[in-house]
Amino acid sequence: MAIEAAVEKQHVDPKITLVGAGPGDPDLISFKGIKALKQANVILYDALVDERLLEYAPQEAIKVYVGNPSGDENFSQDVVNQLMVDYALNFGHVVRLKGGDLFVFGRGYEELDYAASYSIETAIVPGISSAISVPGLQGIPVTHGGLSESLWILSGTDTQGNLSPELKDAARSKATVVVLLGFDKLPEIAAIYQNVGKGGLPAAVIQNGSMSNEKTAVGLVNTIVEVAEEKGIDNTGPVLLVFGSAVALHHDFQRIKQFFEQHEYGDQ
Amino acid sequence: MAIEAAVEKQHVDPKITLVGAGPGDPDLISFKGIKALKQANVILYDALVDERLLEYAPQEAIKVYVGNPSGDENFSQDVVNQLMVDYALNFGHVVRLKGGDLFVFGRGYEELDYAASYSIETAIVPGISSAISVPGLQGIPVTHGGLSESLWILSGTDTQGNLSPELKDAARSKATVVVLLGFDKLPEIAAIYQNVGKGGLPAAVIQNGSMSNEKTAVGLVNTIVEVAEEKGIDNTGPVLLVFGSAVALHHDFQRIKQFFEQHEYGDQ
Repeated sequence: MAIEAAVEKQHVDPKITLVGAGPGDPDLISFKGIKALKQANVILYDALVDERLLEYAPQEAIKVYVGNPSGDENFSQDVVNQLMVDYALNFGHVVRLKGGDLFVFGRGYEELDYAASYSIETAIVPGISSAISVPGLQGIPVTHGGLSESLWILSGTDTQGNLSPELKDAARSKATVVVLLGFDKLPEIAAIYQNVGKGGLPAAVIQNGSMSNEKTAVGLVNTIVEVAEEKGIDNTGPVLLVFGSAVALHHDFQRIKQFFEQHEYGDQ
Repeated sequence: MAIEAAVEKQHVDPKITLVGAGPGDPDLISFKGIKALKQANVILYDALVDERLLEYAPQEAIKVYVGNPSGDENFSQDVVNQLMVDYALNFGHVVRLKGGDLFVFGRGYEELDYAASYSIETAIVPGISSAISVPGLQGIPVTHGGLSESLWILSGTDTQGNLSPELKDAARSKATVVVLLGFDKLPEIAAIYQNVGKGGLPAAVIQNGSMSNEKTAVGLVNTIVEVAEEKGIDNTGPVLLVFGSAVALHHDFQRIKQFFEQHEYGDQ
């Protein structure tokens, strides 16, 4: 029905708006993002997007699920790029609704660049980054005077799927380190910290941050693999890792610290 | 009038909600932030917050300007903390509306901690971080496959006002480096990069990101001080610095690159 209506149209103004939906809680989308959804002819949305956000769009808007471009073979980045352009040329305003913030491992630039290669007008509506907000919602400030004066955000793996080589430098730094897309490599990343004598550094693993099914594991580098397992954290939703002294501010940490002090665990 | 109304009340449920207003554009606040404002009895707002956001609050809500806690002697963090608690105990729901994301040099944790010491219920509504969104809105993705696989966010100065010692490590790293609160130290920071042989690295300075009075300077480490001056960038609004290969994706950069290649400028 929507297709017929579009075919009847004399003229279409193609436009693509990239919208970051934020970490998961649908109310964490920006007001500007909602405005864009309300003016959409087509929405292309990710696996990480809460489908309740689609309700902001006009009823006649076309809603297209495009899976997880970084993990789903049926929807490679090339396929998503092409769908985005095709829909814009045929139906007008496409909102490309993506989980997260767009630009931290979000491939936002690739999509803008592809749209620009067709001379299609683009707009950007950034989202709240999970790397900062998810620890923050848990009471872990990524910077905190006296504990951490910087934040280093990395991916667990490089484009070839290998452990990101920059993690070694990050582990040596004084920064709070947030690792996205790294849960599968948690034992290897913990080992990097242990190898530089930081087995006693506070660490956290958070799955489904900001959502009702959130799970959090807080411990030390030396124990975090075990604690994450105990808490039932797995790869069925987005998981991020946090390493750094600021994790000690989490409310679970004080009693963990007492426990480990009594048992002389941890080498820092 | 609002005061009398509150005094007549039999009972007040104190609550403090920290809301990150985002980088500047008032439409970049989250929907959850707007909901909190609509339910506020009192709003304590920063110098960096767009006053149009106050219009979401009930007309009878008390709106209190608390300046810039990190720069204004009249409103130190201690004063703001105390105001926040006093208003909550006397009037109920206080929304503490802060520019930015709350947790990257935002002192969000200090305010939550202070409220908790009075056993006042708190809630957190994170905002969009300028460190990621402001470069992104300018077409500079802070990560981009093949150019930058990580993002390191630092402050230009430590708590004593000295050049942040971590900047030296950041300059040596492969990360895209975003420096907040560092415009006054731009020549010193550029010198750090030059000292490690990165005078030819792309760099950008962005003032008032996401706002109508935004100014952007794009160049190389070797030229960025001069370009920022030419563009009239000053300290009258928030300024951030970006260093890294991903800056080369900015639309201004291609012609700059050609210019410098012709003139054999830059040492990288």
